[in-house]
Parts: sequence; structure tokens; C-alpha cells
Amino acid sequence: MVRPTVRAYAARAAGSPLEPFTYDEPDLGAGEVRVAVTHCGLCFTDVHAIDDDFGVFSFPLVPGHEVVGRVTEMGAGVSALAVGDVVGIGWQGRSCGGCEWCREGDDHLCRAIAECGTWTPYGGFSAAVVVDGRFAHPIPPGMTSESAAVLMCAGTAVYPPLRRWAEGRRVGVVGIGGLGHLAIQFAHALGGDVTAISTSPEKEEEARRLGADHFLVSTDPAAMSRAEFGFDVLLCTAHGDLDWAALLMSLTKNGRVVLAAFSPLDLGVGGIPGSSGPLVDLVVHQLSITGSFLGSPADVREMLAFAQEHEIAPWVETMPMERVNEAIERLRSGRVRYRIVLTNE
Amino acid sequence: MVRPTVRAYAARAAGSPLEPFTYDEPDLGAGEVRVAVTHCGLCFTDVHAIDDDFGVFSFPLVPGHEVVGRVTEMGAGVSALAVGDVVGIGWQGRSCGGCEWCREGDDHLCRAIAECGTWTPYGGFSAAVVVDGRFAHPIPPGMTSESAAVLMCAGTAVYPPLRRWAEGRRVGVVGIGGLGHLAIQFAHALGGDVTAISTSPEKEEEARRLGADHFLVSTDPAAMSRAEFGFDVLLCTAHGDLDWAALLMSLTKNGRVVLAAFSPLDLGVGGIPGSSGPLVDLVVHQLSITGSFLGSPADVREMLAFAQEHEIAPWVETMPMERVNEAIERLRSGRVRYRIVLTNE
Repeated sequence: MVRPTVRAYAARAAGSPLEPFTYDEPDLGAGEVRVAVTHCGLCFTDVHAIDDDFGVFSFPLVPGHEVVGRVTEMGAGVSALAVGDVVGIGWQGRSCGGCEWCREGDDHLCRAIAECGTWTPYGGFSAAVVVDGRFAHPIPPGMTSESAAVLMCAGTAVYPPLRRWAEGRRVGVVGIGGLGHLAIQFAHALGGDVTAISTSPEKEEEARRLGADHFLVSTDPAAMSRAEFGFDVLLCTAHGDLDWAALLMSLTKNGRVVLAAFSPLDLGVGGIPGSSGPLVDLVVHQLSITGSFLGSPADVREMLAFAQEHEIAPWVETMPMERVNEAIERLRSGRVRYRIVLTNE
Repeated sequence: MVRPTVRAYAARAAGSPLEPFTYDEPDLGAGEVRVAVTHCGLCFTDVHAIDDDFGVFSFPLVPGHEVVGRVTEMGAGVSALAVGDVVGIGWQGRSCGGCEWCREGDDHLCRAIAECGTWTPYGGFSAAVVVDGRFAHPIPPGMTSESAAVLMCAGTAVYPPLRRWAEGRRVGVVGIGGLGHLAIQFAHALGGDVTAISTSPEKEEEARRLGADHFLVSTDPAAMSRAEFGFDVLLCTAHGDLDWAALLMSLTKNGRVVLAAFSPLDLGVGGIPGSSGPLVDLVVHQLSITGSFLGSPADVREMLAFAQEHEIAPWVETMPMERVNEAIERLRSGRVRYRIVLTNE
């Protein structure tokens, strides 16, 4: 008997363009579900993965971790879902279930997180994926699949830290991209006084439409200087270099930077003569820099419900999945406003 | 009438050795006190100041901010002190009193903190200093002046963050010097499970005498690897480069680094191929890096009382103040165990 195969797009080696790729359909284990992918968003972490920036990925690699699709098959013991359900799946497709963090419901902090991506073995730029049913979340009725797909990662990356630290506070959202344009909406709905902070002055009008109360051009020294001590929280969603000196000066004492993306962090050295750098401000102003990594399964469901209640939706452009390389090139060059979702027809 | 002069030791320019220096005795303003300095500790921040590492100091500069002495004169409106009182003075000799932080009692976060050092104009390597009486703290009866001097800065730098974050927790004290050897004692008295973390294996026996439950050589990869996820809090008191990759791996998820000294902070760049660096751990393990800058006047008094109650004292070597350059050279070369206090005979 010929084993069925799955059609996908894979990078054969680090940095390569994606190519059509097929692999044997994996068996379904207990607790697992098979999901026919209808939509998969393209996130900058996919680019990090394709480029093997963190040295933790295996090739060939099928990226894609903002999945929406239909449940087509269920393994033993899955009771919360039914064949035909439309579900969303984010970065996390499984967890060990037994470590100290999983036992607390914080599966996103699973000790074995390095092996916990959706892409074990393969991700969502594919006809189908297999994940633990606990990480296949029902989509709220009325939410479009392309919106839900983006919320599964970008929404999960920004909502839990905003709820924890930014509710009703003066919050700056640094970087107006896939994560940032959702963060503005969530922060606004959470009652924050929201400033969009961007290197791109031309994004002001869109930022205000998304709910920003203020707009700040991070490369404008005079504007950044006027913002001194102005923010309680900065949520960094940018993946490039940031001007940490200016950003830290804009935080009130005891303020917090939340890194929701892998923004390079070099605060310099205290020992450089003549340089009262960001390191000194971090200490003397008692600032915190806090990493934030997605959310627990309960966080994901709360985020989906909150988005539906407050009519929060990503701005999405859909493209057929066979144009994945074009989508990646657009994202690499910063020409996406604000998320591309690839579709299997 | 000839104005009285004050004898002191000053650096004439950044990086210079200290030289004898005299200046006109300043007038005493309302609320101020004049204190005849009997003891002044030597802190690594004095070296930063002499070298003008942060670009914020003026020269000639008289360092010294771990002062104990006798009140010799009081300006109008000082009611909490009396001439003859033995008082301790730390880094902070005044505050604006009117900013949002001072109004909350957090004078150490005063908006004008850059101008708030004891050394306005001159610090404690001197015959006398003038400070706002609110920052001249009575020394608990029975506490020696050399102990009190060191507690004024080193104790104030470590006790408030330990009380806030390390009580009863698994805490690693990074760097066993002037601050670190006090931090071990405070953390132990606060019920923590205390690990001394040092590059110097020969400090183990002393660290255990100070109250450390465990000792970890930070340059031993196997030992650091065994410490994976082992700490709730790391209190960094070191002023040199640290191995952030190893240190962050030793923190439990949601753990915290507290910077109580100006430890250079470069977590590298997420975008280096093949490098799963400390930046990735910061985000994925949801770690925080938090600056801590001394304490409020209330914190200082609590720290002094706690130290007396728990018999916490620095290990001090006293030297006459005229040997200040010898003391500085010993500190620069790491040959102080663990604090030199300079004395005016």
C-alpha cells in the first residue's frame, strides 16, 4: 500500500528559497489531530527560521505557524474537537505536559520548548499539519480564517504582555508591523494611552486609524527628547536594531521594556569614557527589560475572545501559497501592510 | 576675614591620581548639615567617577560617598539631628523634593538625580561634607563607624532589591566584592537559598563563611550547565564583563537578573547564524533584567536596622585617607577583601 504524501513548501538549506516538497503523511498519535490547512500567515519568525538565525532548526524546513484549517482526523482521546471543526494553531503544536511549567498550564514555557514548534516535523506552509489537539483552538464564530490565522501568533505574542503590564497605562508600541499593528489595537482596547513608535513617518495616519493616540518617529531626536519619562511600558515588536538610548530615556522610572520579538539588545558598556549610555539609565532609572514569549493555551483562547469582542483584526493581504517566495521577499524588504496570509484553495 | 578651607583629595582630570586639594568651606543652607568626616569607604563607583566613565562628572572631583562622621553645624530647620550626632551618608546628599518621585518618598529616583550625588560640589575624601539633613542617617548604637560607612552605599545597593525579589528564593549573587559579600549576608538573613557565583574559585571558603549555601564558578561550563533553570533571581554586583549566555541559562523561566552595578550588558544579536544566544533565552524564557539603584531614605534606615538585628557587617580594612591612591590601585586590581575604608585621623 502506498503511503499518502503531503504537499508542502520547504527550505532545503538555511537561507534558501522555498521549494515544493512532499513528505509521507505522519501517523496520528493519541491526543493528536490532523488539520487540513486552509490559511497560514507569514511571520518574521519564519524568516529567522529559514535563515537558521538561532541555530536550532533542521532542514529541509517547512515554515509556517499561523495556521487555520479544518480538523480531518482525530487520534485517540481527543474529545474537545470534532472532525470538520475550524481551528487555529500557533507556534506551539505540542508540549511535554509533565514539566513544572506545563503542570501549571504554562505550556508555552515547556522545558522542551525547543522541540515544541508546530514544525515537528513540518509547519503550516503545507496541505496539512499534525498537532496535539490541546493546541488546536476553535475559532470564534464569525471570525474570518485569515484574521484568526494571524492572531494565532501575532495576537498571542502581544496580547498577554499587554494585558499583564499595559492595561490603562501609557504604552509605546515600537515597530508597526505584523505584531505592532495588532498591539496598537489591543492596547487601545485595554484602555491604554497608546503611542505608536516607528522609524516610518508615513505610517502615522494608519497608526491612528488602528487606535494610536499619539505617533512618535523614533529617529527624530527632538521628538524622542520631548517623550522623556513619558511611557510606563514599551512593547518592542521590531526585529531590527533599536536606538536603546532614546527608547530607555522615554520610559518613566521603574518602567518596563517588553521584548515580544528578537530585537538585538546591546546596551553598551558602562566603561566607555564620555558615554552616559543606556546601561546607566537602566540601572539609575530602575528600568526592566522583560522577554515575552507567546502565551499559554488559556491565554490564546482569551485573546481570541477579546479580539472578537473588541472587533480587533489584523490587516491582511491573502496570496495563494504557491507565491510563498514572493511573500517572503516582500516581508524581508518591509513592504507588507501588515500581514500576508497564504491560502490553500 | 579669611574664609575657612576644607582639606580633601581630588582628581584634577579624568583618570588622574588623587592629589591634596583645598576648597573654601561652603555656606550652610536651610535644611543642611555640615559633617566632619571620620570614615569614608572606597567603592568601585568612585573609580567610575575618577575615570569619568559616564561622562557626567566635573573636575576637579573629590570622590567618596560612603561617609560616616559627626554633625558639626546645622542649617535652619534641621530638627531630627543634633550637633555631635554620628551619621552616615551615602551616594545621595540631596534631592529636589518636588518631582513626582521625591513626593512619593523615592528620593533616590529624583528627576534631578544626576545632580544629586554627595559630591555637589565635593565628596567624602575630605575633612567635611555638607548635605541635606534628610540624607544624614543616624547610625544605630553599637554599629562601628567603618561598618556603617560601607553599608551606606554597598548595603543600600543590595538590600532593597534583595528584600523585594529574593526573600526566601533561590538567589545567585554574582561577583563577590564590596557589594557581593554584603549581598550574601543579607540574602541569607532574608531566608534565601544563596549561591555565591564568582570567577575566583579561591573565594569559596569565604563565601560560605559569609552565609552562602552553594558556590558556583561562573567560568566552569559544566558547573554552570548543572545550574540550568536553578535560580529565581541573580543579583549582579560585578562591574566587568559577564557571561550572559551562561548566567541567563541558570535562571528559571520568568526569572530575573537584578543589576545592582554597571555590568556591561550585551546580549548579542538574534540574527547571527548558528547562535542561539542569550537574547533568545531572554525572550523565550520570559526573563527580566532589572536595574536597581540604591534606595529611598526609608530603605536606608530599614537596611541599617536589619543589618544591626542580623549582625551583618562588611569585612573592612581601614587605611589613613592620605593613602587613598594606594587604596584605589588595590581596588582597580581586584585585591580588596572586601572593602577599604579611609579614615581621617
